[in-house]
Amino acid sequence: MDEMTERVEDEPLMLTPGPATLSMRVKRAMLHDYASGEEKMLATIAFCRKYLLDLCNGQGSHTVVPIVGSGTSGTEATIGTFVPENGKLLIHTNGVYGDRLIEVARKIRTPYASFRTAPYTPPTAQQFEEALKADPAITHVMAVHCETSTGIFNPIEDIAAVCKTLGKGLLIDAVASFGAFALDAKALAYDAVVCSANKGLQAPPGLAFIVAKKSALEEAKGNAHSLTLDLWDQNQHLDRTGMFRFTPATHLLLGMAEALREHQDEGGLPARQERFRRSWRRLVDGMRQMGFRTLLDDDVASPIVATFHDPPDPNYAFKKLYDGMKQRGFIIFPGRLAAANTFRIACIGVVTEHDIGRALDALADTLREMGVTQMGRD
Amino acid sequence: MDEMTERVEDEPLMLTPGPATLSMRVKRAMLHDYASGEEKMLATIAFCRKYLLDLCNGQGSHTVVPIVGSGTSGTEATIGTFVPENGKLLIHTNGVYGDRLIEVARKIRTPYASFRTAPYTPPTAQQFEEALKADPAITHVMAVHCETSTGIFNPIEDIAAVCKTLGKGLLIDAVASFGAFALDAKALAYDAVVCSANKGLQAPPGLAFIVAKKSALEEAKGNAHSLTLDLWDQNQHLDRTGMFRFTPATHLLLGMAEALREHQDEGGLPARQERFRRSWRRLVDGMRQMGFRTLLDDDVASPIVATFHDPPDPNYAFKKLYDGMKQRGFIIFPGRLAAANTFRIACIGVVTEHDIGRALDALADTLREMGVTQMGRD
Repeated sequence: MDEMTERVEDEPLMLTPGPATLSMRVKRAMLHDYASGEEKMLATIAFCRKYLLDLCNGQGSHTVVPIVGSGTSGTEATIGTFVPENGKLLIHTNGVYGDRLIEVARKIRTPYASFRTAPYTPPTAQQFEEALKADPAITHVMAVHCETSTGIFNPIEDIAAVCKTLGKGLLIDAVASFGAFALDAKALAYDAVVCSANKGLQAPPGLAFIVAKKSALEEAKGNAHSLTLDLWDQNQHLDRTGMFRFTPATHLLLGMAEALREHQDEGGLPARQERFRRSWRRLVDGMRQMGFRTLLDDDVASPIVATFHDPPDPNYAFKKLYDGMKQRGFIIFPGRLAAANTFRIACIGVVTEHDIGRALDALADTLREMGVTQMGRD
Repeated sequence: MDEMTERVEDEPLMLTPGPATLSMRVKRAMLHDYASGEEKMLATIAFCRKYLLDLCNGQGSHTVVPIVGSGTSGTEATIGTFVPENGKLLIHTNGVYGDRLIEVARKIRTPYASFRTAPYTPPTAQQFEEALKADPAITHVMAVHCETSTGIFNPIEDIAAVCKTLGKGLLIDAVASFGAFALDAKALAYDAVVCSANKGLQAPPGLAFIVAKKSALEEAKGNAHSLTLDLWDQNQHLDRTGMFRFTPATHLLLGMAEALREHQDEGGLPARQERFRRSWRRLVDGMRQMGFRTLLDDDVASPIVATFHDPPDPNYAFKKLYDGMKQRGFIIFPGRLAAANTFRIACIGVVTEHDIGRALDALADTLREMGVTQMGRD
């Protein structure tokens, strides 16, 4: 844990749902230059692809396709590659990141339908079933695993079961959750999962990884609306040559491989999840003790980020809280439009339960300074 | 120059047309984590945009739009954003990177025509004029500035003059040349220039920057085939908030800003170009002294990369030369299909004339070891 928690002195710790604070070990891995086709770079790419495949039990059935870009680039590549012109995508949304998927589909002219469910309770299998039965033209379903605009976990196992029964391809936006929460390729039988290098995997942002079902990807040949975001083409080139089609972000790939070794050293997915859970528990309990109210009930919340209602105290202003926390070494996040009058504190990145304890002290201190005494709970 | 040439010990120096070897100064700038919206990150993005704009004399008339992605992502974003559905793009090609533009336009279904000129001599203004007059539907022209598959410099001033006279929008792929060779926004009046962070700017790969004429970009609203590669949308968001629309590659942006400060410290564009020219001169002269033949005449070659004919000696094999050079601390590059039976040595990145001298010694040594004595020149 020592090297993991080693950080640059006097830099604030980010308690945000990404970019997450990385270990120095991961950042130092970026201090090297390699040509795209050099052995070291080929081995780095191969290691990342294999590690992620193992992480989701995808050997044999699935493949991992890395691209340079944000998580949103990953979702765009996935929608553009997997949904054919004569197909139709059903997009579920209950927050900002679900809405983003709709924005992608509309912009790239993918035939789609969308359905919105309540933001603070998870959708049910029945809701998916009804939406699918209402529109037999639908060939694919896409949903967000962890909707970080509220922090809600969508019931991906239930959604996968419905898709399997009704024979629909499933695409999952797991940008915020992959690496800390299991998404078993065999059990869920998804066509694709979109992962970010950052967030749960604790690598520098700028790379997206798509876990793709081989048979579905093979059928997707020629679908893509884009050259650089064509996952079929990127995958066949990687399988054939070990290289990206176009100059990769070599330094980010080195950081990614080191982040995966760090993930392994920490104890893999269960250990990462356990750390997030402990931090999140400490956070939510501590905030409640101070009198804050959470937006979500604990049983539907993901232990990645917690959303709190703004205190009703007239002395409260998010900007003041942000500044006070930053001065004390912590970056927190405002709420999203989807959840007005809230703020968010996340516990991903190299954050421990101990750090959360320090952050709670800093928060209490800042609120005292601001003269905020009414937190919203009776 | 000291910090510039400081490199990780025992790592080979890349004499390739990108990724280029970076200074430790630039790589160390990546050892920090910042949230997307933090002051430091906003200042970093603003500095990069302003520096690049100043570099091409684009103040007032143009704007700089950064995206996460390769140079090819930059060309795709540019074609997709600037050429409307009822427009038509004329693509010039005389090598692999011109062909790549055609591949982009075809894949994203941009209406286009292409014309190919001889690979080892530059196209003329007359050839562009004839191609444009033959097809009045053409609204935009795209050409590669430095075609690194051969090393040829295309006469961008002449092409710009024709476009101005005939009232066509000009898009330039300057991925390999920007930062070391002038592309004056006012004089050339281009709609867009695509730049890479890597190559002439000596920053880590994974970011592309598009210098866009404001009036042309404003007209391009709604054109883009992609959400993440929509330059109009990215630009309005940057102008309004200072932030990327989607999580940026924060570490790469820090590296980029440091690379631009390094560019400034070296003496800006003229000094960078002069260093490349001196290295290239030494390289070409040294290789000729050894008996090698260049693919291009010096007056049409760019001082970025030089292409040499394979020696006709039966003991020669590129793989052996590559391995011998790597063992001696240098990475060289094979030729491209466009120029079969050649190999390439580049002089971009933190490479000095002195380094080229050492590389020539290493090459002579390797050839001796290989038993190669016939280099191709009489």
